[in-house]
Amino acid sequence: MVATDIATRVWNHTFKLDPIVRSLLDTDFYKLLMLQMVRGLHPDVSVTFSLINRSKGVRLADIVDEAELREQLDHARSLTFSKREMIWLAGNSFYGTKQIFRPDFLEWLAGFQLPEYELRRVDGQFELDFHGPWTHTMMWEIPALAIINELRSRAVLKQFKRFELDVLYARAKAKMWEKVERLQALPNLKLTDFGTRRRHSFLWQRWCVEALKEGLGDRFIGSSNVLLAMETDLEAIGTNAHELPMVLAALADSDEELRGAPYRVLEQWQSYYGGNLLIVLPDTFGTGSFLANAPAWLAGWTGFRPDSAPAIQGGEEIIAWWRMMGENPREKLLVFSDGMDADTIEKTYRHFDGRVRMSFGWGTNLTNDFRGVSPEPMGGLDPISLVCKVAKVNGRPAVKLSDNPAKATGEPEAVERYKRIFGETPYEARALAV
Amino acid sequence: MVATDIATRVWNHTFKLDPIVRSLLDTDFYKLLMLQMVRGLHPDVSVTFSLINRSKGVRLADIVDEAELREQLDHARSLTFSKREMIWLAGNSFYGTKQIFRPDFLEWLAGFQLPEYELRRVDGQFELDFHGPWTHTMMWEIPALAIINELRSRAVLKQFKRFELDVLYARAKAKMWEKVERLQALPNLKLTDFGTRRRHSFLWQRWCVEALKEGLGDRFIGSSNVLLAMETDLEAIGTNAHELPMVLAALADSDEELRGAPYRVLEQWQSYYGGNLLIVLPDTFGTGSFLANAPAWLAGWTGFRPDSAPAIQGGEEIIAWWRMMGENPREKLLVFSDGMDADTIEKTYRHFDGRVRMSFGWGTNLTNDFRGVSPEPMGGLDPISLVCKVAKVNGRPAVKLSDNPAKATGEPEAVERYKRIFGETPYEARALAV
Repeated sequence: MVATDIATRVWNHTFKLDPIVRSLLDTDFYKLLMLQMVRGLHPDVSVTFSLINRSKGVRLADIVDEAELREQLDHARSLTFSKREMIWLAGNSFYGTKQIFRPDFLEWLAGFQLPEYELRRVDGQFELDFHGPWTHTMMWEIPALAIINELRSRAVLKQFKRFELDVLYARAKAKMWEKVERLQALPNLKLTDFGTRRRHSFLWQRWCVEALKEGLGDRFIGSSNVLLAMETDLEAIGTNAHELPMVLAALADSDEELRGAPYRVLEQWQSYYGGNLLIVLPDTFGTGSFLANAPAWLAGWTGFRPDSAPAIQGGEEIIAWWRMMGENPREKLLVFSDGMDADTIEKTYRHFDGRVRMSFGWGTNLTNDFRGVSPEPMGGLDPISLVCKVAKVNGRPAVKLSDNPAKATGEPEAVERYKRIFGETPYEARALAV
Repeated sequence: MVATDIATRVWNHTFKLDPIVRSLLDTDFYKLLMLQMVRGLHPDVSVTFSLINRSKGVRLADIVDEAELREQLDHARSLTFSKREMIWLAGNSFYGTKQIFRPDFLEWLAGFQLPEYELRRVDGQFELDFHGPWTHTMMWEIPALAIINELRSRAVLKQFKRFELDVLYARAKAKMWEKVERLQALPNLKLTDFGTRRRHSFLWQRWCVEALKEGLGDRFIGSSNVLLAMETDLEAIGTNAHELPMVLAALADSDEELRGAPYRVLEQWQSYYGGNLLIVLPDTFGTGSFLANAPAWLAGWTGFRPDSAPAIQGGEEIIAWWRMMGENPREKLLVFSDGMDADTIEKTYRHFDGRVRMSFGWGTNLTNDFRGVSPEPMGGLDPISLVCKVAKVNGRPAVKLSDNPAKATGEPEAVERYKRIFGETPYEARALAV
């Protein structure tokens, strides 16, 4: 019997839009945690997020159709949290804590929609800005990036014949599974999917998450993607991001206040969250100056997430600081999340195993590693370094220095001022593959 | 929209039998060519075909359920050629010739059904015999082998979870496509699918054939599988097999007649077919004695298919004979078909390129190469050396010597007699992976 499912076939050939983002939960969990705090403490701050394509050689606006991009962004703007999503957010435990989201926040969230966007094509690139209240613009970062990355994949895949697509995904699965098998050799591994923003596609991210669940069992501890966490019964993982210190720093009215901003934001965080959510992200203006001036109470936090220093040096720097502060690193947690892949995870794991608790946030190299798997070598599916960053805060420039000078953002004058205050990073610039 | 196709789902979970062989065309093309000649010249010869599992370590009857095997064999017996199949056989050109099948043969074929079988379990193996007229028993060889091999695959795959199956086939596709890419480097390659009898499954063979079509274009010249050739608009490929000289040899009433049997069968072949179908299979009783005593007219045939000597030595032996007979090897064809894989195809191609026309029949290593692709290494999917050979002819023992002593078959006394008459092969026994 050859049964053609006519309804499916007709459906496949007639739909107008195949939405990339179909739920407001299709975002990183830390956005919801930060949003609750931002709405509570900074409801009137105005923040502009802007798209930055650090892979300048890839002329995105020549690859992705502007009208398609607008359709996808408009579709995302039409979304609200569904009833069952709201019920899950209210009823689920996150990081072992019930009711982490307060009732008044959830009530407000039920009415949430993504705000307007500004899109222009300039010299083969998209200029995409989100102006408005921080409580709204911050929620665009993840869906905007996921949409652009998937539209780029789709544009490339349109040139593939059916059979080539079959081989492409077969190879991608085989490549991914080889990594899973390598990681199976690490008995105390704790791994998390951090790959939403730069994923090849939503369906591919879901496949990767299922592969990790199947292949690593308990060693795969969850996904930063709230929708996938809900749908696959995984933990939703994530704490806080650079936007918090960047915004508080930009709001500072003096050099003194600026110098204190990275710690003030953590005091605020502590007033909202506890336990395993007390993870320090130390590199926004350089880890060195952060640790040098850090208040003693920070040593009591659960862990650090070094996100731009080379993993081993960055980890050692923090361990040395814990020791200096009288803490036992074996009771502390390091979360590695900067451009990790199977080999760097292995190397970092073996370096620190037994000396500190570790977990790994695996992002782009998990959900968008099609390098070498395309039947026609072309590079069009290789991941690019696309970010969406805080650019302005109440009209003032925002700055990130980072431990990797290649990741610094901000207007040159402002960057110089921050360097005067926080010092230069001792690390050299490293190329950004992702 | 998550649309579950309820009808498909219910169908998938309720069918009783998933037939492995669904058409009498799901066999090797040479069987039809030989059948036409056998029916014309030897309609009253009685031939027993018997299953031989040369991979004795694999206890087939402990793996494959006997009742399932009977169901599949019974289903194959229920088949007749369909109207459109008969129309295609009558109307299609084969090897550039129209009406290669004569009307009276096709009329007879329309009523053809597979005859009875005898199946017993003995010490972990199946004894499977087909007794009766040669015109009927010969048609069991390919479907019987395909059924047993696929039942073995299915038995192993029953232990796999859904995700493991996904990874298994992804890896198998990736492995297969790597071979295709290697073969793309050979500009004058002529490749044929010869993988029906030992395929992993029918659907997998179809995928492999599609992969070759897509990846090699004109360099993939066809399939021995008549059904796949018809369905995918490829040439049906094949000429003649060992059973012809084996049966004629067994019918010989004297040593003298026996010595001439390998040539008599080719005279008969020539009375039925011409052109590119004039391919000599010289190794049934050893290529050495075959060439030493071959009549001069055989040098005029299109080519040879060395099927058990090491490819390069076997080819050189035939080229030397052509030269001795005053033929130009560049106008001749060598068909290599013994356990070929991408590396031996490459090596043989590069060795003979420019000196002789070549084509490659790629069998088990094309359609059943799951070595190393299973998520759980177990070997249960590795191919085995399973054959179905002529055992008796009108009650007399049948013998094959071959250029590889490991491939010799027949009762010891009869084998000794044949060795006396045809001589011993100069080649050493080589292990049979497939």
